[in-house]
Amino acid sequence: MTKPTRTDVSELGEFGLIDRIQSMVSSRYRSTIHGIGDDCAVLDNGEDYTLLSVDTMVEGLHFDLMYCPLQHVGYKAIVSSISDIYAMNGKPSHVIVSLSLSSKYSVEAVEELYKGMERAASFYNIDIVGGDTTSSLSGATLSVTAYGRVKKDQLVLRSGAKTGDALFVTGNLGGAYMGLQILNREKQIFLQNPDMQPELEGHDYVVGRQLKPEARYDVVEALAKASIVPTAMIDISDGLSSECLHLAKSSKVGVEVHEQFVPIQQETYDLSLELNIDPITSAMNGGEDYELLFTVDPSLADRVREEVPDCIEIGIIHKEEKGSFLTSRTNQHYPLTAQGWKAF
Amino acid sequence: MTKPTRTDVSELGEFGLIDRIQSMVSSRYRSTIHGIGDDCAVLDNGEDYTLLSVDTMVEGLHFDLMYCPLQHVGYKAIVSSISDIYAMNGKPSHVIVSLSLSSKYSVEAVEELYKGMERAASFYNIDIVGGDTTSSLSGATLSVTAYGRVKKDQLVLRSGAKTGDALFVTGNLGGAYMGLQILNREKQIFLQNPDMQPELEGHDYVVGRQLKPEARYDVVEALAKASIVPTAMIDISDGLSSECLHLAKSSKVGVEVHEQFVPIQQETYDLSLELNIDPITSAMNGGEDYELLFTVDPSLADRVREEVPDCIEIGIIHKEEKGSFLTSRTNQHYPLTAQGWKAF
Repeated sequence: MTKPTRTDVSELGEFGLIDRIQSMVSSRYRSTIHGIGDDCAVLDNGEDYTLLSVDTMVEGLHFDLMYCPLQHVGYKAIVSSISDIYAMNGKPSHVIVSLSLSSKYSVEAVEELYKGMERAASFYNIDIVGGDTTSSLSGATLSVTAYGRVKKDQLVLRSGAKTGDALFVTGNLGGAYMGLQILNREKQIFLQNPDMQPELEGHDYVVGRQLKPEARYDVVEALAKASIVPTAMIDISDGLSSECLHLAKSSKVGVEVHEQFVPIQQETYDLSLELNIDPITSAMNGGEDYELLFTVDPSLADRVREEVPDCIEIGIIHKEEKGSFLTSRTNQHYPLTAQGWKAF
Repeated sequence: MTKPTRTDVSELGEFGLIDRIQSMVSSRYRSTIHGIGDDCAVLDNGEDYTLLSVDTMVEGLHFDLMYCPLQHVGYKAIVSSISDIYAMNGKPSHVIVSLSLSSKYSVEAVEELYKGMERAASFYNIDIVGGDTTSSLSGATLSVTAYGRVKKDQLVLRSGAKTGDALFVTGNLGGAYMGLQILNREKQIFLQNPDMQPELEGHDYVVGRQLKPEARYDVVEALAKASIVPTAMIDISDGLSSECLHLAKSSKVGVEVHEQFVPIQQETYDLSLELNIDPITSAMNGGEDYELLFTVDPSLADRVREEVPDCIEIGIIHKEEKGSFLTSRTNQHYPLTAQGWKAF
């Protein structure tokens, strides 16, 4: 008798696992435009495309109630889910929520979660239209499914980047990761000495990035107003490096990122140095910023700079053979690696 | 300082919790036809209605890997999710899956889950179009979001039952619950003496009902073929009693169920007696049968009997003031109670 094979998910990695799952499911509908492997599933509903996406947050892994108020957990769950719809250049309109909660969660706790979710729903003009609440043996799991639509000629997949395209990123990177470091540091101090007050002063920006991230609906709106359709787009939930690799793999291209242009906010930068982390590492591998990474035809790059607020050109798309790499200020090349993935 | 109030979810109950959540979320879209409080959310997409539903299974609560093979877990997760679409008289076409798995789950385990999900997808003609796989601190949580559509004039809500309507149920009830009892019994025996082989012989039917339930697409198809649109419908995931109460509450009616007509299969019946459980209790309060409970105008009752296979008239709809009750063979009335809910 042979022992059954056991492969750790970590051994296979995110990309390997997605490939494995993709190979196991078949498509039966012509209306299935895009299944597993992008930010959203894309379904042809006749008039336009329906977008569907699910995002899950697990207590102890994606949030820690020691420093994350339940309202923020709810808010973030909605934001991270609808961010996937924006990443397809679409407009989210509805979400449904699945909560699994251990008995430590009271009715009041459920209300706090929903208060945060409803706040996000109000801000992003979304309807929370359903849900399922079950118990769990330990902690909380929030799964939010986002539903949205996009005009057929405005759909943007991960797979459309072409050699020569300009690579843009919105906002700035690494902040949410630095926020997490600060919150973890203060948690450790508190655990050792519960009388100490947490020292979050001077770290408002990065803590805010971690606890209350926002999705870049404004960028999607600006692109539409300027009639610019990116060739590829993805949201940055797992770190710039990892998302560049997703884009490269789906588009069968290489991605070059110029270190000097990667946007890092001052507080993020200073704090990285204070914590002995190279700021570029925070920006490349820190996740949860929910910024958008997109590519456009080089002829449109100037118009993006002029008409889309808060974004910067950070690199260029190459042929696949060149691979994906970071070019340092001293012009050295460092291959991109998917360190950002926190899921396993 | 006043201590913050803490209300256990179990104190409020399922109905109370849904009410509380409903009161907290607002609707911003005219396209939101129906939000929280039915089997599915109903969105107007212009041409017809979009149906969305999410269903979550938690290891240790909804399944036990000691006796539930992973393929069956995957199969059941799909079935329980699309059953909600059928319960709106709709047709499911796509699902997206969210898995949270602890590190004990290998790649091969993920494959087993997907094998089962793909088998269900193939049988019910569904596309699995996406998903999210994250880690968890313990056990597995599967959230399946089902997407479907229904013609506008064929949508069936829980809320449409009218006084005098005939109440029908499909298949038979209590089997899945008896299957669970048998599997639990054998698990205890195995834990005490690992050399014992499980004794499942003679219990194939109920064990099958528990491990591999099916959704009643055939009933929805037969109703369509006969051009019969029920006034209200719901699927039986939490037990007949609990679902009758949902229907009664949403429709603002009372539901009378006649004990003598409640369908109980022979094996379920015999096993109930063997385990000292009144068979009617298994049928009324045992969940996970995924049968359909529906009401029709009394003028259509004969045609339902003739043209819809495998269903039986079990009761009648009264005015709300009469309440909801079971009428025994000796013509006594027992109020229905929502014991079936396993979620908290």
